[in-house]
Amino acid sequence: MRLTVKELAERLGCPCEGDGGTVLTGVAALDKAVAGRGDLVFMAGPKFRPLLEATAAAAAILPPGEAFDRIPVLRAENPQLAFVRATGIFHPAAKPAPGVHPTASVAPTARLGKGVSVGAGCVVGDGADIGDGTVVHPLVSIYPRVKVGADCVLHSHVSLREGVTLGERVILHNGVVIGGDGYGYLKGGDGRYVKIPQIGTVVIEDDVEIGANSTVDRAALGETVIRRGTKIDNLVTIAHNVEIGENVLLVAQAGIAGSSKVGRNSILSGQVGVPDHIEIGENVVIAAKTGVTNDIPSGSFVSGSPHLDVRVWRKFWACAPQLYDLIKDVKKLRARVEELEKKD
Amino acid sequence: MRLTVKELAERLGCPCEGDGGTVLTGVAALDKAVAGRGDLVFMAGPKFRPLLEATAAAAAILPPGEAFDRIPVLRAENPQLAFVRATGIFHPAAKPAPGVHPTASVAPTARLGKGVSVGAGCVVGDGADIGDGTVVHPLVSIYPRVKVGADCVLHSHVSLREGVTLGERVILHNGVVIGGDGYGYLKGGDGRYVKIPQIGTVVIEDDVEIGANSTVDRAALGETVIRRGTKIDNLVTIAHNVEIGENVLLVAQAGIAGSSKVGRNSILSGQVGVPDHIEIGENVVIAAKTGVTNDIPSGSFVSGSPHLDVRVWRKFWACAPQLYDLIKDVKKLRARVEELEKKD
Amino acid sequence: MRLTVKELAERLGCPCEGDGGTVLTGVAALDKAVAGRGDLVFMAGPKFRPLLEATAAAAAILPPGEAFDRIPVLRAENPQLAFVRATGIFHPAAKPAPGVHPTASVAPTARLGKGVSVGAGCVVGDGADIGDGTVVHPLVSIYPRVKVGADCVLHSHVSLREGVTLGERVILHNGVVIGGDGYGYLKGGDGRYVKIPQIGTVVIEDDVEIGANSTVDRAALGETVIRRGTKIDNLVTIAHNVEIGENVLLVAQAGIAGSSKVGRNSILSGQVGVPDHIEIGENVVIAAKTGVTNDIPSGSFVSGSPHLDVRVWRKFWACAPQLYDLIKDVKKLRARVEELEKKD
Repeated sequence: MRLTVKELAERLGCPCEGDGGTVLTGVAALDKAVAGRGDLVFMAGPKFRPLLEATAAAAAILPPGEAFDRIPVLRAENPQLAFVRATGIFHPAAKPAPGVHPTASVAPTARLGKGVSVGAGCVVGDGADIGDGTVVHPLVSIYPRVKVGADCVLHSHVSLREGVTLGERVILHNGVVIGGDGYGYLKGGDGRYVKIPQIGTVVIEDDVEIGANSTVDRAALGETVIRRGTKIDNLVTIAHNVEIGENVLLVAQAGIAGSSKVGRNSILSGQVGVPDHIEIGENVVIAAKTGVTNDIPSGSFVSGSPHLDVRVWRKFWACAPQLYDLIKDVKKLRARVEELEKKD
Repeated sequence: MRLTVKELAERLGCPCEGDGGTVLTGVAALDKAVAGRGDLVFMAGPKFRPLLEATAAAAAILPPGEAFDRIPVLRAENPQLAFVRATGIFHPAAKPAPGVHPTASVAPTARLGKGVSVGAGCVVGDGADIGDGTVVHPLVSIYPRVKVGADCVLHSHVSLREGVTLGERVILHNGVVIGGDGYGYLKGGDGRYVKIPQIGTVVIEDDVEIGANSTVDRAALGETVIRRGTKIDNLVTIAHNVEIGENVLLVAQAGIAGSSKVGRNSILSGQVGVPDHIEIGENVVIAAKTGVTNDIPSGSFVSGSPHLDVRVWRKFWACAPQLYDLIKDVKKLRARVEELEKKD
Repeated sequence: MRLTVKELAERLGCPCEGDGGTVLTGVAALDKAVAGRGDLVFMAGPKFRPLLEATAAAAAILPPGEAFDRIPVLRAENPQLAFVRATGIFHPAAKPAPGVHPTASVAPTARLGKGVSVGAGCVVGDGADIGDGTVVHPLVSIYPRVKVGADCVLHSHVSLREGVTLGERVILHNGVVIGGDGYGYLKGGDGRYVKIPQIGTVVIEDDVEIGANSTVDRAALGETVIRRGTKIDNLVTIAHNVEIGENVLLVAQAGIAGSSKVGRNSILSGQVGVPDHIEIGENVVIAAKTGVTNDIPSGSFVSGSPHLDVRVWRKFWACAPQLYDLIKDVKKLRARVEELEKKD
């Protein structure tokens, strides 16, 4: 892919300055651009100005007002957003050719939309339905009656269990499991556990992305739901009957237990744990490693295990190393008070 | 599946009241039953009585003495247990037809029992032995000399490494790895790590269930053992030479390091960590996110990292937010004592 | 495999004592050796002397000076290291025969080195390059343009995403994912997240081993790097643009967020979490479950969440259970001071 600065500026809808004929061939980080290669860069904020001064890039995306004329400049209110779009233009995701690989096993009752690609070794079960333009990479397992929307990407070793539903433009990275049985048992009189059949399903809405080896369990009854636009990192686990709202971030190794709810626009950082039957409001931020212990109202920012308001948590840990000396101080003080009392 | 209330009551061995001819077609949650569909519900406890009053179900399982006659009622001492059994009757797990899919690669020296189903793309190694009635879903990898008992279910992308043994009725969800090498190295004189060959194996006893993408490592020497009836959630990891007793629950993302032992009927909640060479007794409860730091006697209930008796842990965290003020209070008190001492 | 004590001693370069003609057939733990089977054992330290006295082994590896003549003895400065080498001799890893299984799908443009084994159902993409002697177990997915060095072992259900690079003698256990997209989004004006294309790659250097179901994400731009000799346990996740130095240990379920760096010879214990853009020095030890909160200088030993110097952390937790009584003590003391002040 080769584009002049002017051509790129037109595609991005950005004004440009300097030599519009300069040829660009790709994107790079400010400090990793290679002279003569045609790299496009962007500057995320004023503190990177020294890197900009030194960059070997062929052109830069800068915010309005950032004076610079050594190389051609594209102007954008949000330079990173423009850079992301440029990245998509220069480095489009490679898409396998449509069609079903001869080693794939597709049930005769499955329906494949237009332009679907089914890779080598894939297995598509009875009554499955794959939407137009969806890419199923090799060695994906799709159980019977699964519904996958249009323009999804399923990477190798994804498992979609019986009857689960994905919306459109869903991206599942390698090893993701959607619809494994929820973890539900009854303790019998003899101390043995009796499995509670997990006969519900999972619904993943549009534009959800799920990272490698994460798991979303099917509901016991009803549905586990991940609403549109939510982004889930690697090795996250979501239990049966959970509901995750729109545009939520669940960072790596977070875990959410049965029937809990997370409101929209909330962020659960890495290794956060949420027990069962908890309600987390909207626009909540939960710091890394937090162990949630009860419901969290909308707009909260919490940390710690048990979780505390982040300000309380910070104040506590700023003091914690003083506890040892405090105990000694109180002991001494008691001795002094005793001394005073004796004299009294 | 359609059953009258009377037919179902007979299969469950429950007395029933009201119109025994009412037709049932499935199960539902109290508040999700649909009028006219023939849903069976149960009431878990008195607090759900308002949901019972409003339910659109066709029949309900209730404990003895719970007066209700708007719809037919089945009586059971443990309504949820009866409901679980009814669920199994109305929604039996779909079982693939027996036989070996033509795209599976089964070694000529492998032995398959009666009624075994081996799905598309599966690989079964030399000398493997699969018990009667076991279902091997597509894309499962069974290494040489593995033994799988009767009536197991192995979901897609399960890996059973060389020589591991599963008992009967074991359920492994998608992506489970049994028998990966234990994590064992020696530091050589040059600072590099030398791999300790992991030549032991894994034994999983009857009625164990393991959730999606969990891993159980093979022993360095000897066996890693999971005893009968233990239930393991998603993304749990069990290291080499660990022994887990009978009827243990290991909730999601728990991790147990090398050579540790967990006694029977214990419960390790989500994201619990157990270091190596630890002994955890029987009937122990470990709260979510606990970082175990030493042996735990039978019957304990612990929480925190480092772990504490749960009462100590609760008392501590109830006080913790007061530490900041306490430090200020002690400072003020010291000033007042100094004042008194001066006057003295 | 049968070797006399003398033959084994020669292969290990160890002196031996006692009957050099004694036949050995394998290795065992001191307390698990079986009489008459020809087991070789070693003693890790003086506290195991009672087990040595009682062992049913045919021969033992002991350090110089450890008097024992009931069975033949091999002498080694580091008995465990000699035992590890003996284990490798008696129990060499089974290696599948070279060649490509007929059910594998190998792109015509892929290059396979000499003696490569590609198992059943594997998929090798366009332009992939697999080094001499590498074993690819069944059902591995290798995307286009991947480079794998010589003598690697890739276990079933490994995914190597487009363009990633592995050095020599790399071992990846089942379900490992190398090169999934990094977790990077921009928040658009409408509150929705825009995916930042992840167009970088992953480089795994020589002698790295990665445990089951762990994940290493590709860089947004540039490379995620794991340097030579680093050993990674199960269910670990490493985010985009991370750099892990040489001979690092990352124990099970550790997680490292974007762009962080870990210096060589450091050890991150189980369930440790490292946020993004953190620098961890060389020879750092991070205790299990630690939540790192800022950069850690070389040579540190830290614990807790937020992390503290391990001595501070231990002192704090030794005192923590006293906080409840301390608060009461301070209250009483204040009353006594008030009393004194009144009298004053």
